[in-house]
Amino acid sequence: MSVEVSRLSNGFAVATDRMDHVETVAIGVWVGIGARHESPELNGVSHMLEHMAFKGTARRSAEDIVNQVESVGGQINAYTSRENTAYYLRVLAGDVGLAVDILADILQNSTFEAEELERERAVILQEIGQCTDTPDDLVFDQFQETAYPDQAIGRSILGTSDNVRALDRAALDGYMERCYGADRMVLAASGKVDHAAILRLAEDYFGAMVAPGVAEPEAATYRGGHHAEQRELEQLHLVLGFDGLAYEDPDFYTMSVLSSVLGGGMSSRLFQEVRERRGLVYSIYTFNTAYQDGGLFGLYAGTGKEEVGELMPVVMDQLSTIGDTVSSEEIARVKAQLKAGLLMAMENTSARAERLGQHLLIFGRPIPVEEIVERIDAVDAAAIGRLANRVFGGAPTLAALGPVGPVDRLAGWTNAAE
Amino acid sequence: MSVEVSRLSNGFAVATDRMDHVETVAIGVWVGIGARHESPELNGVSHMLEHMAFKGTARRSAEDIVNQVESVGGQINAYTSRENTAYYLRVLAGDVGLAVDILADILQNSTFEAEELERERAVILQEIGQCTDTPDDLVFDQFQETAYPDQAIGRSILGTSDNVRALDRAALDGYMERCYGADRMVLAASGKVDHAAILRLAEDYFGAMVAPGVAEPEAATYRGGHHAEQRELEQLHLVLGFDGLAYEDPDFYTMSVLSSVLGGGMSSRLFQEVRERRGLVYSIYTFNTAYQDGGLFGLYAGTGKEEVGELMPVVMDQLSTIGDTVSSEEIARVKAQLKAGLLMAMENTSARAERLGQHLLIFGRPIPVEEIVERIDAVDAAAIGRLANRVFGGAPTLAALGPVGPVDRLAGWTNAAE
Repeated sequence: MSVEVSRLSNGFAVATDRMDHVETVAIGVWVGIGARHESPELNGVSHMLEHMAFKGTARRSAEDIVNQVESVGGQINAYTSRENTAYYLRVLAGDVGLAVDILADILQNSTFEAEELERERAVILQEIGQCTDTPDDLVFDQFQETAYPDQAIGRSILGTSDNVRALDRAALDGYMERCYGADRMVLAASGKVDHAAILRLAEDYFGAMVAPGVAEPEAATYRGGHHAEQRELEQLHLVLGFDGLAYEDPDFYTMSVLSSVLGGGMSSRLFQEVRERRGLVYSIYTFNTAYQDGGLFGLYAGTGKEEVGELMPVVMDQLSTIGDTVSSEEIARVKAQLKAGLLMAMENTSARAERLGQHLLIFGRPIPVEEIVERIDAVDAAAIGRLANRVFGGAPTLAALGPVGPVDRLAGWTNAAE
Repeated sequence: MSVEVSRLSNGFAVATDRMDHVETVAIGVWVGIGARHESPELNGVSHMLEHMAFKGTARRSAEDIVNQVESVGGQINAYTSRENTAYYLRVLAGDVGLAVDILADILQNSTFEAEELERERAVILQEIGQCTDTPDDLVFDQFQETAYPDQAIGRSILGTSDNVRALDRAALDGYMERCYGADRMVLAASGKVDHAAILRLAEDYFGAMVAPGVAEPEAATYRGGHHAEQRELEQLHLVLGFDGLAYEDPDFYTMSVLSSVLGGGMSSRLFQEVRERRGLVYSIYTFNTAYQDGGLFGLYAGTGKEEVGELMPVVMDQLSTIGDTVSSEEIARVKAQLKAGLLMAMENTSARAERLGQHLLIFGRPIPVEEIVERIDAVDAAAIGRLANRVFGGAPTLAALGPVGPVDRLAGWTNAAE
């Protein structure tokens, strides 16, 4: 077994996945804190904190941080999601010590200097502008907000421009102190790594962190509904979805198979029916997002204003019939796709570190590939049928951005197949 | 040495790059034909051909092609660029025979059936709509057209909507027959492969292809200039560039280093000056595109209409001063980045197959990593200084999309530093 896990006495987890025959290491800290832990006033603070972590510590200027990483040919990056924030590097094996030093420094000693904060505020406002200009990004934010109205989990990760303008150093300091506890963190590394050495580094660099205990976020309450934004675009960008499944749901892998049969590849039903047989889109695909206490199943389609009237009934029909019609050939094909995808991801250091960090945060343990394969193999047509009824019987969420036309068309589209 | 190359008697090249310790194979056919080989009337035909290759052969329907690949957990895809078209799969090692069979079938026996052609035409029109709605895609097409006006290499790869509506089966058939010659093709594979076995498959499946001999495309003649499109967007999307270097240029790797010092990472001059010190952008980066007889150096920035007046002089100043001021620390850092990047790419089957296919098309031989490292190591400050004078002394190209304001501002911006 290539995976080893340890825990420091403060709850900080250390997980490694050794790959022989590679010369590099992917390593990062995954933090179980994200946009859904924010109050309305603090919306955007997780993401701003992620940005500010690169802007200087007691020992390093912002420029020192990137110079030290890039001088050894390393790469450093970070992301913020609804439930997690991750800070990670890819380096040559000999530079793992530097990587841990920098991760520990930016996570414990960031200074959030006033001048840096003003500049980074401006950068984030540009990032919000870029998202607003990218319809197939923006429509996903509108979808999320419509699925979970008036809840942290429904708000944008970047926050509103007004919030970004208002957040100050005290807000960042307070949020970091409250939320970035040792027991919410995983140092995960994959590639040419030695577990004992990484563990020693973790003890030295993260052993003194405290674990303040974070209040659980408000439960995710899916509501659904319609959101339309008229904009002069070539395409009408649509996201249609339903209340989905949490990570721990026994049907989690049934959902993966169902999602793939519908829209997981070029042989999927939606790709075949909507693009290949009807030519109504260039892009159509499903997604399956899980949270600790809920999830979203959905699909994206980019179509024309002339085509949408044909597309929506076809899509609704695919959703309402799949439960009764999924074939053993389709199930077998999707299982092969999911299992080969797992194997392919195993050849990539970054994908393995990412999975390890996520599994430790979500399940408190690494999930062996064999266990995932077993659960995929156990999915059958009856389970898919039951799940399709459960999911597609619920209230839909539809977000549409582009040449939408009258808003009441939206409700008409999602009612068409009921 | 893990790389082996053979050539069939018709000129078709077969190149493999064996990686022990992986279970998968990346394999594809790289064709030395792309949008720059098109006449104005045929603009878009290379890309349409790439799409139509998936729409059915004498032996397989469109659905058969994707079903057969995805049933074994494989992935199939393709892309078209100005000089190349590539068709590639990622499969488990045992499915290499199927992969070669499918590649050979779609490249030799596609039927371009009338009904499929009409549907795919609609899909490509949607793809054009998606590109038009994505400002940081569209501005690159506008930049290319402005750099190379009235030339095939300057036109959009997707073609105009009018062209896509007009192209017919005879056009596709004729173009394929004229252009898809055996001597313009490379079968490249990386991962768990055996060269002798791949060579036998290539002989069986590609040995009968002919090599009609393709007329060389019109020489690339860089002109430069300004293009502005006013659009109501949050950001002003800018691409600024200059006449660059061909693949075979002795200064090719000097250009790589120069480009990276300017905008190749978070420690680069533009990232530091424009984003980190001034907060004027979220995204800014350089690119370095080479062709067989020319190239483009450029940079992208997404900024605000209030910020652009500060951004442009700063950018022009960075370009005009780098030749005299590049430091040995910067050069050393960028060399480490480029070399580590090479090593990291060596851990990825798809990246290795891609590089092998490209090298065979461009240079007629695989370029060993050691040779690339040697050429990177040979770059010094004097060479960068000479190259910066050569490149940035030429006529600029500037494309701007968004809240542009008066068009004569564009010329003002690029003259500011002269």
